[in-house]
Amino acid sequence: MAPPMQPTMKADTQALQQALRRFTDTHIVPAEPLLAQAQQNQAQQNSNSKAPAASLATLRQAAQQQGLWGLFYPQAYGGQPLSLASYVAISEEEGRSEYGPNIYGSRAALDMHMLHRHASPSVQAHCLRSMASGEMLGAYAMSEPNSIGSIPATLQTTAVQTGEHWVLNGEKWFISKAMEADFFTVLATTSSPGGLLMLVVPRQTPGLTVGPAQSILGWHMGQGRVRFDAVRVANTQVLGQAQNTATLLQERLRLGRTLNAAQWVGLGQRCFELMCARVQSARGQQARLPSKQLVRQHVYQVHEALVHARALVQMAASTTQGSSPIPTDELAVNMAKLAASKALCLAADTAIQLYGAEGLGADTPLAGIARVARSTRILDGTDEVLINAIGKRLLQRYALA
Amino acid sequence: MAPPMQPTMKADTQALQQALRRFTDTHIVPAEPLLAQAQQNQAQQNSNSKAPAASLATLRQAAQQQGLWGLFYPQAYGGQPLSLASYVAISEEEGRSEYGPNIYGSRAALDMHMLHRHASPSVQAHCLRSMASGEMLGAYAMSEPNSIGSIPATLQTTAVQTGEHWVLNGEKWFISKAMEADFFTVLATTSSPGGLLMLVVPRQTPGLTVGPAQSILGWHMGQGRVRFDAVRVANTQVLGQAQNTATLLQERLRLGRTLNAAQWVGLGQRCFELMCARVQSARGQQARLPSKQLVRQHVYQVHEALVHARALVQMAASTTQGSSPIPTDELAVNMAKLAASKALCLAADTAIQLYGAEGLGADTPLAGIARVARSTRILDGTDEVLINAIGKRLLQRYALA
Amino acid sequence: MAPPMQPTMKADTQALQQALRRFTDTHIVPAEPLLAQAQQNQAQQNSNSKAPAASLATLRQAAQQQGLWGLFYPQAYGGQPLSLASYVAISEEEGRSEYGPNIYGSRAALDMHMLHRHASPSVQAHCLRSMASGEMLGAYAMSEPNSIGSIPATLQTTAVQTGEHWVLNGEKWFISKAMEADFFTVLATTSSPGGLLMLVVPRQTPGLTVGPAQSILGWHMGQGRVRFDAVRVANTQVLGQAQNTATLLQERLRLGRTLNAAQWVGLGQRCFELMCARVQSARGQQARLPSKQLVRQHVYQVHEALVHARALVQMAASTTQGSSPIPTDELAVNMAKLAASKALCLAADTAIQLYGAEGLGADTPLAGIARVARSTRILDGTDEVLINAIGKRLLQRYALA
Amino acid sequence: MAPPMQPTMKADTQALQQALRRFTDTHIVPAEPLLAQAQQNQAQQNSNSKAPAASLATLRQAAQQQGLWGLFYPQAYGGQPLSLASYVAISEEEGRSEYGPNIYGSRAALDMHMLHRHASPSVQAHCLRSMASGEMLGAYAMSEPNSIGSIPATLQTTAVQTGEHWVLNGEKWFISKAMEADFFTVLATTSSPGGLLMLVVPRQTPGLTVGPAQSILGWHMGQGRVRFDAVRVANTQVLGQAQNTATLLQERLRLGRTLNAAQWVGLGQRCFELMCARVQSARGQQARLPSKQLVRQHVYQVHEALVHARALVQMAASTTQGSSPIPTDELAVNMAKLAASKALCLAADTAIQLYGAEGLGADTPLAGIARVARSTRILDGTDEVLINAIGKRLLQRYALA
Repeated sequence: MAPPMQPTMKADTQALQQALRRFTDTHIVPAEPLLAQAQQNQAQQNSNSKAPAASLATLRQAAQQQGLWGLFYPQAYGGQPLSLASYVAISEEEGRSEYGPNIYGSRAALDMHMLHRHASPSVQAHCLRSMASGEMLGAYAMSEPNSIGSIPATLQTTAVQTGEHWVLNGEKWFISKAMEADFFTVLATTSSPGGLLMLVVPRQTPGLTVGPAQSILGWHMGQGRVRFDAVRVANTQVLGQAQNTATLLQERLRLGRTLNAAQWVGLGQRCFELMCARVQSARGQQARLPSKQLVRQHVYQVHEALVHARALVQMAASTTQGSSPIPTDELAVNMAKLAASKALCLAADTAIQLYGAEGLGADTPLAGIARVARSTRILDGTDEVLINAIGKRLLQRYALA
Repeated sequence: MAPPMQPTMKADTQALQQALRRFTDTHIVPAEPLLAQAQQNQAQQNSNSKAPAASLATLRQAAQQQGLWGLFYPQAYGGQPLSLASYVAISEEEGRSEYGPNIYGSRAALDMHMLHRHASPSVQAHCLRSMASGEMLGAYAMSEPNSIGSIPATLQTTAVQTGEHWVLNGEKWFISKAMEADFFTVLATTSSPGGLLMLVVPRQTPGLTVGPAQSILGWHMGQGRVRFDAVRVANTQVLGQAQNTATLLQERLRLGRTLNAAQWVGLGQRCFELMCARVQSARGQQARLPSKQLVRQHVYQVHEALVHARALVQMAASTTQGSSPIPTDELAVNMAKLAASKALCLAADTAIQLYGAEGLGADTPLAGIARVARSTRILDGTDEVLINAIGKRLLQRYALA
Repeated sequence: MAPPMQPTMKADTQALQQALRRFTDTHIVPAEPLLAQAQQNQAQQNSNSKAPAASLATLRQAAQQQGLWGLFYPQAYGGQPLSLASYVAISEEEGRSEYGPNIYGSRAALDMHMLHRHASPSVQAHCLRSMASGEMLGAYAMSEPNSIGSIPATLQTTAVQTGEHWVLNGEKWFISKAMEADFFTVLATTSSPGGLLMLVVPRQTPGLTVGPAQSILGWHMGQGRVRFDAVRVANTQVLGQAQNTATLLQERLRLGRTLNAAQWVGLGQRCFELMCARVQSARGQQARLPSKQLVRQHVYQVHEALVHARALVQMAASTTQGSSPIPTDELAVNMAKLAASKALCLAADTAIQLYGAEGLGADTPLAGIARVARSTRILDGTDEVLINAIGKRLLQRYALA
Repeated sequence: MAPPMQPTMKADTQALQQALRRFTDTHIVPAEPLLAQAQQNQAQQNSNSKAPAASLATLRQAAQQQGLWGLFYPQAYGGQPLSLASYVAISEEEGRSEYGPNIYGSRAALDMHMLHRHASPSVQAHCLRSMASGEMLGAYAMSEPNSIGSIPATLQTTAVQTGEHWVLNGEKWFISKAMEADFFTVLATTSSPGGLLMLVVPRQTPGLTVGPAQSILGWHMGQGRVRFDAVRVANTQVLGQAQNTATLLQERLRLGRTLNAAQWVGLGQRCFELMCARVQSARGQQARLPSKQLVRQHVYQVHEALVHARALVQMAASTTQGSSPIPTDELAVNMAKLAASKALCLAADTAIQLYGAEGLGADTPLAGIARVARSTRILDGTDEVLINAIGKRLLQRYALA
């Protein structure tokens, strides 16, 4: 199917927010239990069948038809004319369900921007249109079992140049979307000192093995291992220039963290709404929850964390320059990532607490959201690494001349 | 198999601790991944087959043979001559693995003491010896979908007397060990004002339906629903005297919470040991984790929480009187429960954080422990209810005459 | 001296910020030790001499000459044409020194707006011009030794109408600026049910006694007691209409809290700058503080709290309507008050900690700032009252129809 | 006056506790406002008059007469036959008032033990008896304006040997009891690499200057500066052997921190009692404080912190060996110090909060206690240094062989 090149919908932020809210509440929320089960089943089969479960496919198609698909894709590929600062409020809506980023296509936005900015014409021609239509999906292969994520120099996956090709060897793990991805953007070290390279590697390339799937807190959410055994990749598959890989790495981190943070705020807001509704429900009234100060304190604390995170995400998203989608202020981005992660964790945990035993069970989306929440403090930059980096950076401003 | 009536092992606390530590490390820890999978599979089948998985049965048998079974059972049924205050240090060892309480038989201790103290001779004759040998297991059916756990008066399961029988109607949920239990101790309301009754109801009683199983944070850990449709229960199945049910309720809460808290400290200590070993591992050294202040701070905080919880559990356990196994100081018990729950949550969470992505995955017991940890803040008394009760009680001491 | 009716300075927010920053750093900061001592001495004398200490008077005059005085006064009285939302960033600069609000005249702004909006022509004629020039100062007398601040109905100060006068009886305490004020806005109960009245009472009125001064955490900061013994107040001294007193109360709270919060953020930012400079100082370098993770964590946490508070203050200040200076969203105001108070407390506490023993001593402004910080969690609405109110309000949005 | 060499009171811990409780409540508490003012006045005069204020002297004398003086002095000097583990519960009672350690003589116990263990016969003869009677007081001069407290190697006060003497040069600050002390135990560096020396230096020694007094958070509590300009000290004034100074340093730290921690728990317990009484007072009832969940939560949290700290102090105190008064487990001592400091800070802060404005004022001992509390996180080992040291030590246990 063609991507929505001629958007039927004006890029009016508020209207988009409302349309997304309506779509999520009407179509996605009721399907969540089914989607959770489908996700679990599919990943467990560890199969190479990457077709989305029936319900997902239907929902995606509906989102596309309503002009709610790929809103932050590059404009040439159907995205709305939205600055990042305008988009994050929309992204929050997309994130209100754990399945929103998949159904609204937003989980592909980061890869599309990276390819659109840095891929060779042939890679762009091969990938971008298919990604825009939802037929092709990328994943980012960085973490390794035996390296330190925050220190790229410790990566053990190597890329060795041989004529027109690079040969990749190594193993990656906890790769998000691994079980589904059609290609991987792989970060590898080269023989030059401190040398790093990003390569786009199709899943079907000989020597590339996907799997096994890796569960997150006991649940399969699409992560998995990827092995590279003498995988040959053409020069044209390299992203950017080798000497600029560190810059690309930073671009990816900054945009990726900002987009994630916006979605986490949305997911946290969902928890907040669920828990308030629960407190005010007949069962909550029976236990007189609305008048209990400890309940009100919970409500205050979650609201405060969300307002805070939303403001920080907005600040980070406002540091783009010109028409570039990449936020430039790393400190602001890291502040936003930490705040959104903390808000989501608190919101999910508090909602579970206020639901009581039911919050632990399978009748609400909270257990699933809590898993996502917990993983945000580790994947894509641990709390400790970010806190240390922020403190160091802030102190540098006060260094003696 | 006969229970270890003639203990082959002297009740020397320290020797028992060491024997348990050795058994857990040698036999249970290596089997944990298998046990986790078996637990999950069995519960998902929702079957009435309540036979323990092969590995569990083998491990139990080994524990019995080594005199490590049922250490806190009533002495007439093979328990060691241990005060609760001596036992909690042992219980901590039993709790170091999520599967320890099952393998060491300690998960039956609370029910055995309740029956031994309050059941009719016929119930005692029918149950206690089988429980002591591990052939029979009880569960406690209190929580309901539409009542407030902390306010027994809101229970909707009713017991109506008809001649020599009581007729039970109602539904319970999130009943621990439900899928496996041979009988249920059911808490029901009677027609007398504020009237409560505890009855021992065999699983096979007509009108009693077990299931479906209920997952906890996405994982089946044995909890489930139990329905009572006009279930007829003989008078002799009543625990204690109707007018004393509130006292029994308190006895059960106080002993149950103390035993749980001791096991949670053990599980938290396990997390602490895992995380320290991880920090000091080759991979931890590569990332220079041992010298990082934020890592050391984590280590300090978890250690402090565990030392604190252990001291409070000891204090609570020391409030028994004479030969009774029931702690008498409710405030001390609730303090211990809260502290142990908090320590376990912090330990599990921190260990996951220090393991990084691997801590989220399936290669450590941490994801499973984190699920147990999270549930302790809700099941068996929510944090909020306990905090409120403790504050109220403490303030009463300062009330004006 | 005449107020700066014809502002010599365009209301350019950023320029004002910079001018204030320069003035504070150049003139106020070096004088702080002297100002602290003068404040302490004067208040301890408990005298009726209300003339500002020499240094204060000089600094005020300099601020007036540089067009930095009374920036948020009503425009008719020399204020800049600034919305509250624009002013709060300026107010933050005014608040960077504990003595800034006095020297820049901003501590009179709230009273001026209340009088300008609600006082009778005669009161306005008598007070506003003198307040604008800094010759006259008001104070707000609400708290009482035997009433509950958050429940106006418990006030015991009474106003009884007799012909053209009201007769006031009662006692107030912890009245900010009491020792210096020329008049008091007094909140009293009337004989009508739930009736409240605000009256402007000159300090020299017979029956009104000021003092003794009350120290805050061992330091005299201008607070004191005020007694009313059969104090006769003319009808024209009433603020607003009796039936609208509750509205006035809310107006005052909302604007007052917002202005305070903005200043607290400024004071917290000062602590942040001091502590970062200290970490980077020669002494800090000697102890290798800049590279310590626990130090960086402190820096991160304080920065985060300040960014958060600043954003919430901005949100609250943006809820004014038309040309009114009063924010309309009580929930946003209370969120801002709590966040600013928390940020200031954390900033002052952390700065002291990073200074070590020196931070406890008299060579930095930190001990003084810490006293201010601690008082913000109580005066003008305790944390607990605000948290409860916010939680209640948020939950109301989710009440079942 | 002679010290109570023949104790009139049996060393029965519980009886001593009760006697101290009674004495504190009856005699010290009513005198606290007076004692606070006297302390402030005396220190501000910066005088060399070191005579205790009249009220203090009277109270000390009464304590001596009732056998409540110097309970933990070496037995040869009138101390009770108490192990440290027994004494800490008593010490807690002594600490319930900020002035207790002075009135009960316990603030001299650490110096007496250090001299008794390590001073030359001549120093012992000169000092111990006078200390035991309260006529002589020591202080410990370690911190310096330009060194890092936690790194003795950075000390800049030097001791150079010349024949039978050592010549001291340097400056110390924030020396507790400086304004009152008759002699100082000075820590200095020597010319040998890493060399440290402890010397007992009488206040009247030429070249030694005491003062100015240094306020703590705006209040004079006895701290001050001490200068050494070519101060000559006889060899016999050295404590221990030069090569063992590091051991003495550790002994002093371990015993000193344990004794302080016990007193802090007592002071925190006092805050707890004050705040509970306040909640239950007529004024608290008027505001319905006893039934408010946020109040109960405060009560719970403070109680928990105190119970925790008490248990850790007990553990630390139990690590003495034989008849030595020195705890041997540094980790346990540091855990206790941190926990007691945290509990005291929380208790003082919460009590102030629950008193409201009155808690900020001068009518309760809370403002004074809050100053003491805040200083405990810095003086005698900052939180950060201790947390880092504890984490490091714990991790060492898990180091790979």
